[in-house]
Amino acid sequence: MSEVNAILTPKNVVLIGSTVVKEEVGMASPQLFKSVIHNMKKYFRGKTRVLDLNGKAHIDDLTSLTHAPELAVLMLPPKQSIVQAEKCARTGVKALVIITGGYTDEQRQQLLKLKQKYGIRILGPNTIMGVINTANGLNTTFEKDVMPKKGNVAVISQSGGVGASILDWACYYNIGISKFAFMGDKIDIDDVDLLQYLGEDEKTQVICLYMEGVKNGRKFIEEAAKITRKKPILALKGGITQESAHRAKSHTSSIAGSDEIFDAAFKKAGIIRVSDVEELMDAGIALSKQPPMRGENVAVVSNVGGPAILAADAIVRNNLKLANLSPRTKRTIEKLYRGVDATNPIDMIADARAERYRKVLELVLSDKNVDGVLVINMLKSCFFEPGDARVIPEVAARHSEKPVVDMPAGGEDFALIYKVLGNTKIPLFDLPEKAVKALRVLKAYGKIVEKR
Amino acid sequence: MSEVNAILTPKNVVLIGSTVVKEEVGMASPQLFKSVIHNMKKYFRGKTRVLDLNGKAHIDDLTSLTHAPELAVLMLPPKQSIVQAEKCARTGVKALVIITGGYTDEQRQQLLKLKQKYGIRILGPNTIMGVINTANGLNTTFEKDVMPKKGNVAVISQSGGVGASILDWACYYNIGISKFAFMGDKIDIDDVDLLQYLGEDEKTQVICLYMEGVKNGRKFIEEAAKITRKKPILALKGGITQESAHRAKSHTSSIAGSDEIFDAAFKKAGIIRVSDVEELMDAGIALSKQPPMRGENVAVVSNVGGPAILAADAIVRNNLKLANLSPRTKRTIEKLYRGVDATNPIDMIADARAERYRKVLELVLSDKNVDGVLVINMLKSCFFEPGDARVIPEVAARHSEKPVVDMPAGGEDFALIYKVLGNTKIPLFDLPEKAVKALRVLKAYGKIVEKR
Repeated sequence: MSEVNAILTPKNVVLIGSTVVKEEVGMASPQLFKSVIHNMKKYFRGKTRVLDLNGKAHIDDLTSLTHAPELAVLMLPPKQSIVQAEKCARTGVKALVIITGGYTDEQRQQLLKLKQKYGIRILGPNTIMGVINTANGLNTTFEKDVMPKKGNVAVISQSGGVGASILDWACYYNIGISKFAFMGDKIDIDDVDLLQYLGEDEKTQVICLYMEGVKNGRKFIEEAAKITRKKPILALKGGITQESAHRAKSHTSSIAGSDEIFDAAFKKAGIIRVSDVEELMDAGIALSKQPPMRGENVAVVSNVGGPAILAADAIVRNNLKLANLSPRTKRTIEKLYRGVDATNPIDMIADARAERYRKVLELVLSDKNVDGVLVINMLKSCFFEPGDARVIPEVAARHSEKPVVDMPAGGEDFALIYKVLGNTKIPLFDLPEKAVKALRVLKAYGKIVEKR
Repeated sequence: MSEVNAILTPKNVVLIGSTVVKEEVGMASPQLFKSVIHNMKKYFRGKTRVLDLNGKAHIDDLTSLTHAPELAVLMLPPKQSIVQAEKCARTGVKALVIITGGYTDEQRQQLLKLKQKYGIRILGPNTIMGVINTANGLNTTFEKDVMPKKGNVAVISQSGGVGASILDWACYYNIGISKFAFMGDKIDIDDVDLLQYLGEDEKTQVICLYMEGVKNGRKFIEEAAKITRKKPILALKGGITQESAHRAKSHTSSIAGSDEIFDAAFKKAGIIRVSDVEELMDAGIALSKQPPMRGENVAVVSNVGGPAILAADAIVRNNLKLANLSPRTKRTIEKLYRGVDATNPIDMIADARAERYRKVLELVLSDKNVDGVLVINMLKSCFFEPGDARVIPEVAARHSEKPVVDMPAGGEDFALIYKVLGNTKIPLFDLPEKAVKALRVLKAYGKIVEKR
């Protein structure tokens, strides 16, 4: 635990690289080194020292420091990297984040020996982007000015590319992040260490995991199972086929194992599996904002017929059920609004505005036959105004035990409603299918919680 | 044909509504009427007359016109609408677009009698948004200033809401549209008429269809089968379950029939089925820009490992195959770039820029074992610059018989690459899964074309 602390919540950090290195392999580039320095100076609220091995002299500032930094970030080619790593270990540095890749098996062993000898902990090598902690501003990525907003979703990625893609997604779509860790070759610190840490982390409510392989399967399942009692873990597994597994092996030296084994392991650990980055993020948002769904019965409350029908189709396709509203709920709605047929999916008709949404949502959420609600509020072809959407979190808050998700139609409609609801507890999706998949994940977590 | 011509390419149009009507049902609203007037005046390049039945007098301008307009757009409540429809028919108007809904079966029959007596053709009622033709600027929608850009994708929607959602999607994501038609209750002009028209329309290269039911199934299959020889038809069918079918019935009085029947019918007609609006649009874009794929072997050319692995997974999940590159292609690539393992999915490593993409793409597209290529070009965590992407359409154009699609990671990366490639022939997707689904549709159309 404490060593992972040094990785994610260090008080002082040293960045070791070179602004003149010529051997630009495995991300050991002067430009990238400068970008990491830029990001650390801009965001990190601890102390940052820079050790620029500019080749002019055998600078060895590190040993001259009175207090060793807790964390060293290494951006040098393998050979130089190992030399510096040893110096760090001797000086009392607690942990290393090694950005660069291209290490041979032998070089990896040399790094591991440092751990055995000095107790120093290592993230990487080949982490590419290293770590982010939005709470203390730690940001070792070399993408200038890329920093997600604070939130309660943590991300662990074995791959630099997939991790960078998740990071891009999170920044662009304004998803609140607690911690970000890129594992790379994971010779030392691995999924299990990071899961343990994030399981205890108060800032983290949901853990999103991208993995290509796992070393100690039993330990992984054991630790994950403990955590999923308290908070959900989502996993995207790369390399489900023989061909992609070959790529995974050369990519992060993972031995993938058969996909069925992973499926069984995830199930045993209470980990919810998703199949792409978008699903991972959508599910993360839903779980970070809404309660688990305790049953499978979904009501659709819409101001348009067609999208409500597509939502109903998606509900059935995703193994959920269209809630069978109680006769009383139906009757009350139909009495209130002439012309509205309150059979689920409910089409409240194109002139529905805030007041009708408030009343119908209240009735539907109070119905014991309903476990969760998918709200559809289209602007185009309807009378609904963006501000009307404010009633949705208001009513949902009175029924905090049942999840509510919202689907403004994709495109401009989504952007306009996002301005109103983006910072509320209501997760938004731009397609009925995505909203339903989010409910499916909330139901899956409901089942996991129920079992325990 | 000629009557549908009057609906989509009229030279002069009369808009009939009221700016003071009190009975605001079924979209008969003064505000919406004003918006349609606004759009027509702004975009339509023919003549637009406005007949505002403002209740002050029994204005009957229509009969006083020396030349009858070809098309009348009706935005009145059912009763008044029927009165005006008859006047139009008597004056020689060729076709009606009826925006408003809420017509009883009897009222629908009254409208149909006008067709029988005067030969006037009717789109609707309950079309909600009516029609758009980007070529002549015809736009009867009441969403102010909503006009998609010119292109070769046509859309037919039975539902106002789903159609509006597709329209929103098309405008927001800059998808080029030829024609847009909302069918509503389709008492007269239906899928078959519109398909016939769009099948002949030179401006249309792909037809996207949202439907909830069909009246004359045999005719529909027959006509669609003729068209799909020349151009692809994509269909999204709403109401696949009993519950959603109930909603479809009250929504557009469609009798859905079982979903399996539709599946069989689509197959027979060579119609490619998709399952949501996003898939419909993504497939439409792919088919409008790229050739059909003649086999199932896909090569992935990437500058990152993880996303390439996810793409390989998606390829297998979508019943395509990872192309087995010929030994010569592999050898040539590996000789050119030390450290690159050219096993498909190819990871060209994070420092790949334009030149490496150009050469590898050229080699891969020349390989007879490859039927189509998915290019991945990440910016974050890589050296790739947006301008480098220009080599992709350049190389693809030399191999115009094989489809190429591109996947910049979602978020900002996507937006930056879109600026460079958005107007080229290369379709862009923000997720490996979406790019692969596009290839799957190109392959499906390849099979349809091959059969004939």
